Amino acid sequence: MIKVGINGYGTIGKRVAYAISVQKDMTVSGVVKSNPDFMSRIASKNFNIFVPEKDKIKIFEDQGIKTSGTIEDLIEDSDIIVDATPEGMGRKNKPMYEKSGVKAVFQGGEEHSIVQASFNAYSNYSDSWGKDFVRVVSCNTTGLARTLYPIFQDFGIESVNATLVRRGTDPNDHKKGPMNAIEPGLKIPSHHAPDLKTVLGVGEVNTVAVKVPTTLMHVHSVQAVMKKNSSKEELLSAFSNYNRILPVSGKDGVSSTAQVMEIAKERSLNRSDLYEIAVWVESVSVRDRVASYIQAVHQESDVIPENVDAVRSMFQLSERDKSIRTTDETLGIGKKVY
Amino acid sequence: MIKVGINGYGTIGKRVAYAISVQKDMTVSGVVKSNPDFMSRIASKNFNIFVPEKDKIKIFEDQGIKTSGTIEDLIEDSDIIVDATPEGMGRKNKPMYEKSGVKAVFQGGEEHSIVQASFNAYSNYSDSWGKDFVRVVSCNTTGLARTLYPIFQDFGIESVNATLVRRGTDPNDHKKGPMNAIEPGLKIPSHHAPDLKTVLGVGEVNTVAVKVPTTLMHVHSVQAVMKKNSSKEELLSAFSNYNRILPVSGKDGVSSTAQVMEIAKERSLNRSDLYEIAVWVESVSVRDRVASYIQAVHQESDVIPENVDAVRSMFQLSERDKSIRTTDETLGIGKKVY
Repeated sequence: MIKVGINGYGTIGKRVAYAISVQKDMTVSGVVKSNPDFMSRIASKNFNIFVPEKDKIKIFEDQGIKTSGTIEDLIEDSDIIVDATPEGMGRKNKPMYEKSGVKAVFQGGEEHSIVQASFNAYSNYSDSWGKDFVRVVSCNTTGLARTLYPIFQDFGIESVNATLVRRGTDPNDHKKGPMNAIEPGLKIPSHHAPDLKTVLGVGEVNTVAVKVPTTLMHVHSVQAVMKKNSSKEELLSAFSNYNRILPVSGKDGVSSTAQVMEIAKERSLNRSDLYEIAVWVESVSVRDRVASYIQAVHQESDVIPENVDAVRSMFQLSERDKSIRTTDETLGIGKKVY
Repeated sequence: MIKVGINGYGTIGKRVAYAISVQKDMTVSGVVKSNPDFMSRIASKNFNIFVPEKDKIKIFEDQGIKTSGTIEDLIEDSDIIVDATPEGMGRKNKPMYEKSGVKAVFQGGEEHSIVQASFNAYSNYSDSWGKDFVRVVSCNTTGLARTLYPIFQDFGIESVNATLVRRGTDPNDHKKGPMNAIEPGLKIPSHHAPDLKTVLGVGEVNTVAVKVPTTLMHVHSVQAVMKKNSSKEELLSAFSNYNRILPVSGKDGVSSTAQVMEIAKERSLNRSDLYEIAVWVESVSVRDRVASYIQAVHQESDVIPENVDAVRSMFQLSERDKSIRTTDETLGIGKKVY
């Protein structure tokens, strides 16, 4: 039974905590919260709460929230830490993990250079086998790797071009924007291009990202130049072998991310999340060896199964397909909605 | 066992169907869907599907969705119909229900004049006792009635003034707006003022509604002139006796509807709904006999428990408090999140 500590209980951390808690080969040793807010109160109903530094213990207890100690205590009692702290903090936390000899999984906000392997369950599970420091790539990169992998396997990929239409912020946030503007990312390619290469050995990759005023999901327009020619039917058939890809159709009335997330609500998995990448079947096409499709990514949850699988790979608990199957079954991934 | 047919499977209809399906004294005889879209496919996994007219049977079956007949067949097999069709259609449907001698519950989009009683569980459960045609008032009016009732009971109410800041459309909709404007309702008072009087015997009521670009919830700023003076503490204590009112606090980081709905997600009830009316404790105040507070209303789900209770009252199945308790327990209302 692997004891997993979660550092950070935001959008990703709290979902990883849930996902770990429903596995049979892992348990949550505790979670780190920085502020005694409503989310700390909710977290404390299910998990042991730890704080980043000693001074915070009193601050939490003044608010009536019991703590189990500091992050050092959590590390002491854990075999691995899933670091779900804000972008760039993972790098600062790493020496603390190294010093204590605990393994760590970082998230996509961290650089590839601080870990031994970046991780996507389908495309490079074995690269993290037995490793101590691993990074699960970002929600967008995970989305790209998931749907490009079946194409890569069946037809080969020479190069990829993707335009990412990104959500402005997460649904639980009321401060960030844009509220009424479209904001192109002016660093081109965006970080997703090099990140994709850390988990999938495709050739040239170009990615462009544009931020828009919505909170539900990201949408990607993807083009991949394949080594072998293929067809729409073959692509759809390739996708259909993978649980973590969900075909949706405008013919059924699924015309936007609004309806995709409505499907997730109907399924009522934990937090109404959608772990799968939704691909619009009408958008899938092939012309002159170029595969093209549009997909939607639920940024709050698509990386959650990958975090679970990364832990299994790092402790050599299960081979790829068995780990993925277990994760999918426990989280309800691939469960038919209709 | 009361057999409940649901006419319409949109935002409200599908939630009523779920809520009825978890009651022990009722069962869902079927639901009416007009189009063979993704929601029909999902509905058909759990419920018998009926269509508004014979021609539609083939249209559904061409899409591979099995139907159990037309709405007439559903009425035949039901003791009561919950009519959750779009605004104004209930009036048109009523003669069909009358002809078949089936009872019906309408929603807040219909006029009070077409029913024998309008309904709110707390404020006038007994008005619908044994009745054949009842209307559950709209989400906003339900929100007002819920939180005004405890004040009405304990201190009396002379008059009410409320400003309703309304969400633009529901989360599953991608067509309506406003997208980037604030739209005052120019019919003043808005329909909520007369509607409130149909369920709670307060004196003068004025309501003003303003639509804003968000999908999560409505927010109300409410002022009530009380007959007796009171205090913030007494108001909070009055609210605390009612399960369907949820106190929230900015001190805990619940600063907006974004965090209120995040609490609902954490609780993971069906569809991540929030059946309770959330009241910000900091906003509750009393000055010169005027009680004032700010509340948030989850427009997709706050009327769902009322629909269940309305059925119980119309069939004289349980007294008010017993019905409310049963509904609350089965739906998870009042379940502590922290």
